[in-house]
Amino acid sequence: MAKQPIHITLFGGGNVGTHLAKNLFKLSGVRLQQIYNRHLSNIKSFEKQTEIIDDLSQLKPADLFILALKDDVIVSFSKKLKDFDTLTVHTSGSVPMIALQTRRKGVFYPFQTFSKDKPDLDFSNIPIMIEAETEQDLQLLKTLADSLSKKVEIVNSDQRKALHIAGVFAANFVNYMYRQAENILQNNDLSFDLIKPLIIETAQKVQNLSPAHAQTGPASRGDMKTIEKHLDFLTQKTEFELYKYLSELILKDRNNL
Amino acid sequence: MAKQPIHITLFGGGNVGTHLAKNLFKLSGVRLQQIYNRHLSNIKSFEKQTEIIDDLSQLKPADLFILALKDDVIVSFSKKLKDFDTLTVHTSGSVPMIALQTRRKGVFYPFQTFSKDKPDLDFSNIPIMIEAETEQDLQLLKTLADSLSKKVEIVNSDQRKALHIAGVFAANFVNYMYRQAENILQNNDLSFDLIKPLIIETAQKVQNLSPAHAQTGPASRGDMKTIEKHLDFLTQKTEFELYKYLSELILKDRNNL
Repeated sequence: MAKQPIHITLFGGGNVGTHLAKNLFKLSGVRLQQIYNRHLSNIKSFEKQTEIIDDLSQLKPADLFILALKDDVIVSFSKKLKDFDTLTVHTSGSVPMIALQTRRKGVFYPFQTFSKDKPDLDFSNIPIMIEAETEQDLQLLKTLADSLSKKVEIVNSDQRKALHIAGVFAANFVNYMYRQAENILQNNDLSFDLIKPLIIETAQKVQNLSPAHAQTGPASRGDMKTIEKHLDFLTQKTEFELYKYLSELILKDRNNL
Repeated sequence: MAKQPIHITLFGGGNVGTHLAKNLFKLSGVRLQQIYNRHLSNIKSFEKQTEIIDDLSQLKPADLFILALKDDVIVSFSKKLKDFDTLTVHTSGSVPMIALQTRRKGVFYPFQTFSKDKPDLDFSNIPIMIEAETEQDLQLLKTLADSLSKKVEIVNSDQRKALHIAGVFAANFVNYMYRQAENILQNNDLSFDLIKPLIIETAQKVQNLSPAHAQTGPASRGDMKTIEKHLDFLTQKTEFELYKYLSELILKDRNNL
């Protein structure tokens, strides 16, 4: 007997939902049978590929409900699905699985930064974190995740939160450092283009080397003279204070070695 | 009449010197005729390709002396070359050109992070910043830089310092953020591998998008609830304070929009 495809209904028309839908449509073992959104206009681009709905009474029986919703509406929305026996997962990094108000709960968290600017995002290199309450539900999620990505991990809600926080450091705060660089360059009539190769190289370096070993710069070599020269040069308050604070932290780490 | 190659003597056997030498050997318009280092052992790997020396009395006439030396020895070393008429450049981001004690001064600053771990570094994508006192000397540096790299900029010493500081933010401080992520993951039994795709994606995002527009995360969307949850989770002092401080800065930027 041929294996049945996994019947999925996706909820949400935001970044994660849109990218996820595009990738789910490519899978032979999956039937993305419905996409729900409060406003049909947000999911209209999918109407040729599947049924789009804005009314929960239209829901068909499914193996999996995926709630690709904003953190602050996941819990309240899940209440509306509390009478279904369908495994229901959210895609958030910071909402505990247990917060879901459905009978069967799980998490399906693709760990990547999603932006609308990128029309196509290949999931095969995006780590997916899964969690469920029963071995059977976990197996369903693992089958799905394995068919989307080469990197699937079973993690609990605390670990997922830790990963999310690590992501804030490695992506959001990193981007904030890029912004400081951009400001400094602009204020000195220099193009941000000049620093782009350095940004790529710095990211590539830690693909093979622990960041603890990849640390370079004036603070990591205890070069107080350069640090002072740089602080003299920085006139904007935020840049000055940030440079000082981070250099002190790196110097302290250095002294603790 | 065929064009004469540029005769170069390189001083220094560190990271920059080594990578520069390897790339200079590839150029047809250049003759890297001597490499000097205080300890011959550091430059021994080049002895089949050129003359290696540890005694300044062995110096041959050259078009260009390149001092690929540490910041704190550039000035004192340049004094030893004060009687030469050869254009002499250093490769540093933070030493002013004028600090050189030679008759003809210049700067040849490849703007990239250099590490010994990478055996081969292609200079074609590394921006090179040049500076000189005369049009003629600048022309020589430009000819050389153009043959090494696709991105050559003439910048003054102040701009070079600004670029160096921007690099501290975009590389050294960024790497420090990667380290925090690594710590958080390790403390929760998660592999740093999980975050590597996010790191690459974050760096790639700003290749086409201004970092000011690429900013995402709890602080940039004013999500105080997630910020508080994350702060609750962070028990290590540095991580907690850094998360708090940077979130406050990003929140402040947000309110100024």
